[in-house]
Amino acid sequence: MDIVVVGSVALDSVETPERRVKDVLGGSAVYFSWAASYFSRVGIVGVIGDDFPARHIELLKSRSVDLEGLKKSAGRTFHWVGKYGSNPNERETLSVCLNVFEGFRPELPPQYRSADYVFLANIDPDLHLEVLSQLENPKLIAGDTMDFWIETKRTSLMKTFKKIEMMILNDSEVRQITGETNLIKAGRALLSLGPGIVIVKRGENGALLIGEDFLFSIPAYPVENVVDPTGAGDAFAGGVIGSLARAGAMKEENLRSAVVCGTVVASFCVEDFSLDRLRSVSEEDIMSRIEDFRHLTDF
Amino acid sequence: MDIVVVGSVALDSVETPERRVKDVLGGSAVYFSWAASYFSRVGIVGVIGDDFPARHIELLKSRSVDLEGLKKSAGRTFHWVGKYGSNPNERETLSVCLNVFEGFRPELPPQYRSADYVFLANIDPDLHLEVLSQLENPKLIAGDTMDFWIETKRTSLMKTFKKIEMMILNDSEVRQITGETNLIKAGRALLSLGPGIVIVKRGENGALLIGEDFLFSIPAYPVENVVDPTGAGDAFAGGVIGSLARAGAMKEENLRSAVVCGTVVASFCVEDFSLDRLRSVSEEDIMSRIEDFRHLTDF
Repeated sequence: MDIVVVGSVALDSVETPERRVKDVLGGSAVYFSWAASYFSRVGIVGVIGDDFPARHIELLKSRSVDLEGLKKSAGRTFHWVGKYGSNPNERETLSVCLNVFEGFRPELPPQYRSADYVFLANIDPDLHLEVLSQLENPKLIAGDTMDFWIETKRTSLMKTFKKIEMMILNDSEVRQITGETNLIKAGRALLSLGPGIVIVKRGENGALLIGEDFLFSIPAYPVENVVDPTGAGDAFAGGVIGSLARAGAMKEENLRSAVVCGTVVASFCVEDFSLDRLRSVSEEDIMSRIEDFRHLTDF
Repeated sequence: MDIVVVGSVALDSVETPERRVKDVLGGSAVYFSWAASYFSRVGIVGVIGDDFPARHIELLKSRSVDLEGLKKSAGRTFHWVGKYGSNPNERETLSVCLNVFEGFRPELPPQYRSADYVFLANIDPDLHLEVLSQLENPKLIAGDTMDFWIETKRTSLMKTFKKIEMMILNDSEVRQITGETNLIKAGRALLSLGPGIVIVKRGENGALLIGEDFLFSIPAYPVENVVDPTGAGDAFAGGVIGSLARAGAMKEENLRSAVVCGTVVASFCVEDFSLDRLRSVSEEDIMSRIEDFRHLTDF
């Protein structure tokens, strides 16, 4: 396995001003793995309930996502219910039912332990620490978190920062962790907490890559019809790590390309609910949009 | 004269969390002309009161800004008082004293009427129409406006859109004029009202150039110490029009470069109050930061 992602596999119900969908395939590990699969071999560590439809399993397998690490437990699958207003950047979480995810203890199958690239999606930082102890010398560990863990588990989060080389976070999270308003200052402050690289996801405002001695900034790919932004951040991370795993070396130019790959996969993700847009997107579509993006930003 | 700008010349009092300055040089025509002066010859049409300090006149002349069109009237100079919170993107206007600017009727000196490039800074659209009637066949008319005119003078504004080739506006203004939330859709909707080109200023989120058949998007230049954002939008516009006037042809590649020049001049502008940072910035400094910006966005 090139890449292992540890995160949620979910059934989401989402409401937008135009439409509402119920119990669609979602979860950070799902969006991440689908996006990464365009570039590298990826396996999921997560848990589903006995209500999880077989067709979702088939869908993930159709992109060769490895599901050896996906456990089935008695009970219902993690369920998230959210709503977007006319501004797609404003999300309201209406309900979260952890269900089988509540007792989730990530356990890596033997063949996952030697993965070169590991992505710790947004889960309890104490679980991140458990995953870290199961790894055998990975090339890159990347991670995500959210406001809830920043507020309630700061000590554990700080411990993970000493072991996670790359944090991929929203701008609001970087500001919350560091207490800095200016995003460049906030990014650099985060580097001083441990990670060697910070990638800031800025939604429709693009992305920022901050290293010890370099900075890379790009706008978002312009999407005229944003249907549902759910999963865009995880799809972005999947594109980034997938691209890095394919490139094979953590050089600055590879990191820059990886951020572009993440941007482009995320831009497809938001064009429909769930994986509905991505499931019809080929590697050629991604390469073609990367060329569009190059032209968009060229001067 | 290559470029003529019609707009305000002001004395500003500005408060930020760190400092407060009183009666410093400001106004849209001042920031615009200073920025444009790095690239082309520019003259100001505006009005000052008898309290306007001679040293400000000398400063503008030191960058060869032409002041033939700057009238002095009995009374006090236009005065703006504003305040920024810890987020420099949130501005509060505490007071506006129009003073001599209240009765301002722009009158172009004969040698300005044949200017190739004209920028109508944010003033009453009825005054824009008066300026337009005084012009002899310019190559490009560009303009700006603000929420107040969009609300109170929509009919006049729509008339100006039929005659102004390029609008340089904030994202909030583009959304307000068109009623579209999505910025790409909003930009295209604005094109349908008349202008052939729309440039959207997005502050720390960069800039967007929208033409009939092309799109160009760039992030902001990362500034770690934003001292005072006042005038950044006008400095941006000055960099854009100055660069275009120097290039001489309205080709897509020149438009792209112009947006980068605007971005870079604006990034210097916010690093101090008034023109305090820009007054020590040379053409070489601008060229050097353009190269930094190229590296920042390169992949």
